[in-house]
Amino acid sequence: MKRIGVADTTFARVDLGRYAVRALQAAGTGFRLVRRTVPGIKDLPVACRQLFAEDGADLCLALGMPGKAEYDRTCAHEASLGLIFTGVLEQRPIVECFVFEGEARDDAELEALGRRRAEEHALNAYALLFHPSSLARRAGSGLRQGFPDAGPARRSR
Amino acid sequence: MKRIGVADTTFARVDLGRYAVRALQAAGTGFRLVRRTVPGIKDLPVACRQLFAEDGADLCLALGMPGKAEYDRTCAHEASLGLIFTGVLEQRPIVECFVFEGEARDDAELEALGRRRAEEHALNAYALLFHPSSLARRAGSGLRQGFPDAGPARRSR
Amino acid sequence: MKRIGVADTTFARVDLGRYAVRALQAAGTGFRLVRRTVPGIKDLPVACRQLFAEDGADLCLALGMPGKAEYDRTCAHEASLGLIFTGVLEQRPIVECFVFEGEARDDAELEALGRRRAEEHALNAYALLFHPSSLARRAGSGLRQGFPDAGPARRSR
Amino acid sequence: MKRIGVADTTFARVDLGRYAVRALQAAGTGFRLVRRTVPGIKDLPVACRQLFAEDGADLCLALGMPGKAEYDRTCAHEASLGLIFTGVLEQRPIVECFVFEGEARDDAELEALGRRRAEEHALNAYALLFHPSSLARRAGSGLRQGFPDAGPARRSR
Amino acid sequence: MKRIGVADTTFARVDLGRYAVRALQAAGTGFRLVRRTVPGIKDLPVACRQLFAEDGADLCLALGMPGKAEYDRTCAHEASLGLIFTGVLEQRPIVECFVFEGEARDDAELEALGRRRAEEHALNAYALLFHPSSLARRAGSGLRQGFPDAGPARRSR
Repeated sequence: MKRIGVADTTFARVDLGRYAVRALQAAGTGFRLVRRTVPGIKDLPVACRQLFAEDGADLCLALGMPGKAEYDRTCAHEASLGLIFTGVLEQRPIVECFVFEGEARDDAELEALGRRRAEEHALNAYALLFHPSSLARRAGSGLRQGFPDAGPARRSR
Repeated sequence: MKRIGVADTTFARVDLGRYAVRALQAAGTGFRLVRRTVPGIKDLPVACRQLFAEDGADLCLALGMPGKAEYDRTCAHEASLGLIFTGVLEQRPIVECFVFEGEARDDAELEALGRRRAEEHALNAYALLFHPSSLARRAGSGLRQGFPDAGPARRSR
Repeated sequence: MKRIGVADTTFARVDLGRYAVRALQAAGTGFRLVRRTVPGIKDLPVACRQLFAEDGADLCLALGMPGKAEYDRTCAHEASLGLIFTGVLEQRPIVECFVFEGEARDDAELEALGRRRAEEHALNAYALLFHPSSLARRAGSGLRQGFPDAGPARRSR
Repeated sequence: MKRIGVADTTFARVDLGRYAVRALQAAGTGFRLVRRTVPGIKDLPVACRQLFAEDGADLCLALGMPGKAEYDRTCAHEASLGLIFTGVLEQRPIVECFVFEGEARDDAELEALGRRRAEEHALNAYALLFHPSSLARRAGSGLRQGFPDAGPARRSR
Repeated sequence: MKRIGVADTTFARVDLGRYAVRALQAAGTGFRLVRRTVPGIKDLPVACRQLFAEDGADLCLALGMPGKAEYDRTCAHEASLGLIFTGVLEQRPIVECFVFEGEARDDAELEALGRRRAEEHALNAYALLFHPSSLARRAGSGLRQGFPDAGPARRSR
């Protein structure tokens, strides 16, 4: 049975992990969840490394919410590089789901955006692991997570 | 028989992978294609790593389309570093083909630019694998992909 | 018995390591401390690598205080990337605690901020090692270190 | 017999590889050249990795010409990081010779600058491999490549 | 007997390596010096890797002087990342000593600043290798290299 790792943070202001887990469980069966919660996004790369190496994950979801300050963007950049480095070393996908606090105008919007994005990235993770051909069919079609799809460029000609 | 890996994304608004594959097939024979489609450009490094390590690719084409926002440039930078890191680790070339959505004024131009650049990078990939001497002959000649060639500096003296 | 590595610097203007150690000792028992002091934050990644590989640490706290200049931000960025890289290689967590000199208005505030943040990161480190479920229970709850918690977005609806 | 790897690009508008090779051949004997031409500067790290690992190079010259756009500076940064990473992994020097198109006012100046810098970096590469003591004698003397030497600070007192 | 590696450049306008070596020799005995001079700061990571792996260094001093241009800051950033990466891989400290040409108003000041900083970093290197407890005693005390110490924040209350 496949294992999906879910790594999230106590820093985030939305329980992204919970939304992701629900979406995964609604998407299908045939997998077991392994989870790790860390303080902040910069701790996610090691958490994913451990989910792969110690907990046997075949794929990880890394969920986090950078704050509004300029410095938070630097932290997100560092975390992203660490996640990519980890995935390449482990040869297994890490689906990064970051929701920047500054993307939403208020807390209600932040909660809604976080939920949608976590759910849509969870479905991507599920597809990567169980139905890669469904992604292949949608190559180049302008899909987005947490916002309306941009759609393919050809459609508007 | 050599294998060429093609990695593309569902985020892109142009089906870059399809254009690249057609150009490869028109360029010659003697290779087999292996493909992976992932959600976004930051997933391309792991996809290439898997195309090399699991699917036996000798070279990868990594095709993606960063959006128009400032943040998308950061994502492209992270993806590029991951692709370089992956290629160095695997000791095999990854031809990166990124088309920034902001490079084109409208969707028709985006489609045309994406097509040209995907095709020209595909031909580069083919040359790297099968005719490296054709690249050597054109060293320092100011070639471009998706735009007119700049040409060598000496020509204009 | 678990080992916690504590790496700090002579550059910092607050004795962050001392505050962290006191908080760890107040948090519980069952661990042994191993320590290394280095000149500046860019030396922390190697110090942590040595704490893991030579001193047997299961987790490291990396404490540092970047100065006020623009260049110090670059150094902090480099140090952070090195810490993430080291943690991923070693497959063990490094809890980074950086206090930027420019975050405080005067020395008294700097001392107080440094103390609070070092203590709170030390408690995070303790939780990661001994009570990971306590972090899991607080996932997505907007926790902060050295400043008041932001709280979950849902609370304010 | 030592081997010197020369990696250059079809993107460059000056045949930097040719100038470098001529300078190497004029500098002395006792080495064999191995060459690879790739599309752009981001392909240089893998080319050098292959020159080391497949072609037996003891040192590589990596020659490239980033364009004038802001984005080209990002590409150069990514390529440089990749070259440093590759050299460290392989434990062998990569002499980077980048000529930014924007450094010259016109094509004639670009050709001349490219030639001088390629030749001077080639001589550095030769010295690193065959006469390291000649570099040691000039430590701290303000040498430049492609522009007049800055000279040591003490001279002007 | 311990070995200290000293890596410096021909690009620097001050003979930082000479000042560092004198300070090391004045600090004590019990070590042997191994040296490598390279063209510029981006060559320092490989030089240190070789000092460790081929010359048996237990610690390296990496001395360099980035120029005044914006681009030199990028080069320094790349070099720093490479040095951190190298130290982590080798599990041994690299004490980076960079003096930016723009830090000094004229050549005399540059020479004096370079000398002081090289000497003070050399003493740090000596302490790291032979007297780590002397660094531990000064943790959090606001030490600086090449400029007056900032001192601890508590002193000024």
